[in-house]
Amino acid sequence: MDLFYLENIRDRVVIEGETYKHLRAHHIKTRDKIFFTNGKGLLATGKIVECMKQKIIVDVLEVKTMPPRDNKAILYTPILKQTERLDWLVEKTVELGVSELIPIITERTIKTTIKLTRLQNIIKYSSLQSLKFYFPHICEPIFFEEAIKNNIKMKRTICYCGTELEKTQFFDFLQPKEDIGIFIGPEGDFTIDEVNKAIYNGIIPVSLGKQRLRSETAAIVSLTIFAIKNNL
Amino acid sequence: MDLFYLENIRDRVVIEGETYKHLRAHHIKTRDKIFFTNGKGLLATGKIVECMKQKIIVDVLEVKTMPPRDNKAILYTPILKQTERLDWLVEKTVELGVSELIPIITERTIKTTIKLTRLQNIIKYSSLQSLKFYFPHICEPIFFEEAIKNNIKMKRTICYCGTELEKTQFFDFLQPKEDIGIFIGPEGDFTIDEVNKAIYNGIIPVSLGKQRLRSETAAIVSLTIFAIKNNL
Repeated sequence: MDLFYLENIRDRVVIEGETYKHLRAHHIKTRDKIFFTNGKGLLATGKIVECMKQKIIVDVLEVKTMPPRDNKAILYTPILKQTERLDWLVEKTVELGVSELIPIITERTIKTTIKLTRLQNIIKYSSLQSLKFYFPHICEPIFFEEAIKNNIKMKRTICYCGTELEKTQFFDFLQPKEDIGIFIGPEGDFTIDEVNKAIYNGIIPVSLGKQRLRSETAAIVSLTIFAIKNNL
Repeated sequence: MDLFYLENIRDRVVIEGETYKHLRAHHIKTRDKIFFTNGKGLLATGKIVECMKQKIIVDVLEVKTMPPRDNKAILYTPILKQTERLDWLVEKTVELGVSELIPIITERTIKTTIKLTRLQNIIKYSSLQSLKFYFPHICEPIFFEEAIKNNIKMKRTICYCGTELEKTQFFDFLQPKEDIGIFIGPEGDFTIDEVNKAIYNGIIPVSLGKQRLRSETAAIVSLTIFAIKNNL
């Protein structure tokens, strides 16, 4: 099954622009059955009526609302120095089931801006590729101090490599079916001061294991654990 | 701790070339204490004697042989169409503790060659970055039919997305402390014919979960599971 994006799902749609190119890259032809989502939970089944230069006409035969997942994983993501490392973090955590990405500016964050449209596009294509009908949300970066005051009713964890304090294994800590907030630090990790502030705000310090992982790998590992625990 | 590469560990060493650049990038200076490995289990502690243009002189103060890990994970890795996706697969699986990488040519493999030196370099730097004293081995690609006749005394699994046959969850199947061989398919997966051949050769078909993952993500997820199970 290949999944394509369609912002407005109606009975008959004219497809142009990016989705047109995406369909063309899949060599679709007249009378092919195709699947669309709007990224907000709708799954539409359509039939290609006509393929023209620069546009394709599709009849939508059926529209279903797909059930949202029971619980969510919010990733407080580091902004990495190298653009492509952040791109990968986003692509992979989307594949693995992240619900929302909140970029955070911490003490050791070097780059404090993101290319939001670029990352939204990566989220869109990674969602389509991994057949997700709800595209995860991403926002502009916020400060760590603000982030730790967010979603306070949710179970939240901060992944930390330092050995100054006792940490639980994230794998043992995470329970199935619960919402989880996960803080991942930038290159060079969080400062102990930041971790203490997080703890003060009810966030649990956790470890992802004994191996030294890069930031983007830590994010991917935390989402893999979320997927395993929730049988995704 | 930062770790650097040194092929021949002796009492006094003159460092040039790539390791010289690597040290320079870390802004080391005279009298700094540094750590080296030869990638074959040795950990050397050295002291910078002199920093010159294009070379650095180091006195090695102590050499230890680090214990190898008890069990290994051999990844039969797909050769991905896009070079950077294979680069990432290699970098990340090394971070997560892969012991050996064997690229395989399968029915749906489009690109059948790899850049061995480039990948060995990625392995080296990923090992150093994640503090690994044994660099994983990688070889030139071999055919799938040959690969399934390899390491037959080892527990081996083939990750497969198709639904024609019953599969065990890799997470439930893998036990701590055992050697494991993991086959990951290329874009478009293995063919059912290949999976049947694998089964005939004693390889167990497994699933990595219900989500549709890209090949490189599947490889990273399988190694994450290996790391969790072995408490790495």
